[in-house]
Amino acid sequence: MKIAVLGTGMVGQALAGRLAGLGHDVTVGTRDVAATMARTEPDGMGNPAYRDWAAAHPAVTLATFEQAAADAELIVNATSGDVSIAALEAAGRDNLAGKVLLDIANPLDFSQGFPPSLFVKDTDSLGERIQAAFPESKVVKSLNTMNAHLMVDPAQLAGGAHSVFVCGDDAEAKKTVTGVLESFGHTDVIDLGDISTARGTEMLLPVWLRLYGALGTPMFQFKIVR
Amino acid sequence: MKIAVLGTGMVGQALAGRLAGLGHDVTVGTRDVAATMARTEPDGMGNPAYRDWAAAHPAVTLATFEQAAADAELIVNATSGDVSIAALEAAGRDNLAGKVLLDIANPLDFSQGFPPSLFVKDTDSLGERIQAAFPESKVVKSLNTMNAHLMVDPAQLAGGAHSVFVCGDDAEAKKTVTGVLESFGHTDVIDLGDISTARGTEMLLPVWLRLYGALGTPMFQFKIVR
Repeated sequence: MKIAVLGTGMVGQALAGRLAGLGHDVTVGTRDVAATMARTEPDGMGNPAYRDWAAAHPAVTLATFEQAAADAELIVNATSGDVSIAALEAAGRDNLAGKVLLDIANPLDFSQGFPPSLFVKDTDSLGERIQAAFPESKVVKSLNTMNAHLMVDPAQLAGGAHSVFVCGDDAEAKKTVTGVLESFGHTDVIDLGDISTARGTEMLLPVWLRLYGALGTPMFQFKIVR
Repeated sequence: MKIAVLGTGMVGQALAGRLAGLGHDVTVGTRDVAATMARTEPDGMGNPAYRDWAAAHPAVTLATFEQAAADAELIVNATSGDVSIAALEAAGRDNLAGKVLLDIANPLDFSQGFPPSLFVKDTDSLGERIQAAFPESKVVKSLNTMNAHLMVDPAQLAGGAHSVFVCGDDAEAKKTVTGVLESFGHTDVIDLGDISTARGTEMLLPVWLRLYGALGTPMFQFKIVR
């Protein structure tokens, strides 16, 4: 499948590398290709600069948001929540129309320091805002409730015995995303319902962040026992 | 231990019954004893009227909030979140001072219908508001992330292999509550940190409610796999 992964950070790298490894034709999208390739420093979380990651992943192309999205069948939003709608607008409304848009972003607001708050919540969500801004796209919220390593290789923890959610209005689009999740190794994909259920998964972030602090590792996961 | 359980609904009944069964001296507190005993209808969720529950639990006394709290060593707030602070004020500041206050309430706002929103969240929490309103009490938030049956008998589901959180500023108070949780059968008690971590556990409610809808049963639980 031709896939555009929008965002060059830890989540974008993890998704792009895993999807390429599974044989997909992956292009990473960024705002400014030259600026992205000029950065040599690790990011604030210690992840490698994109150009170092790219050198190790020659099968993955880097392009503008617009170029990446143009002929992709599946679009992955792996940008920071605060710039997601701007990035998707740069990708181009027509390039997203009719396509599945897998949204992994969280509406984290770091403006007041750590822990971040959420800039949309409870009666609205980032997933809904993206669906409302791009009504011709099929938005599916997923993977936003776990560390990037576990998103793409859940078997690293407890053999994959934990849960992932999908939220979206389009049943076929959720089926497509579920197929991608299962190809990563996810075994418990829970369909919560329409895109408004993204409120609940985005509101998991505050307890996720506190668990990260309490447990001292991001390698944990929610499992819905039933 | 002498325990006051404030609240006569499903959560109060579950806690009071279990604590009495474990040999504690339990008094349930209510605003108006005569009014509580006069109700004969099940509540909106189909739970029995308090007087029917009380007939089956003769060891548990019913009293006013104030009478119940007066000589209790541990206070359990099992009232609805929207009336919790008023109920605790009725219990009497002096009757709560210096004591462990186990807060199970969630800040659910049903005024706009279902699903409810949260009337406090993200940068504040009901747990924090209660701690701020009763600074001489030792507030521990716990048990608010699961169905009442699983609060008091976690082994009903997967032999108890799931998680419960404690949040609070006082380490000794969290130890007391952890002991109560373990006496119920909880095996994975996670100390998230100070009372501000209650924000995260209260914000689990939206996804809990959507999971209830998706799974068709409230008998599920969060397990933190690590």
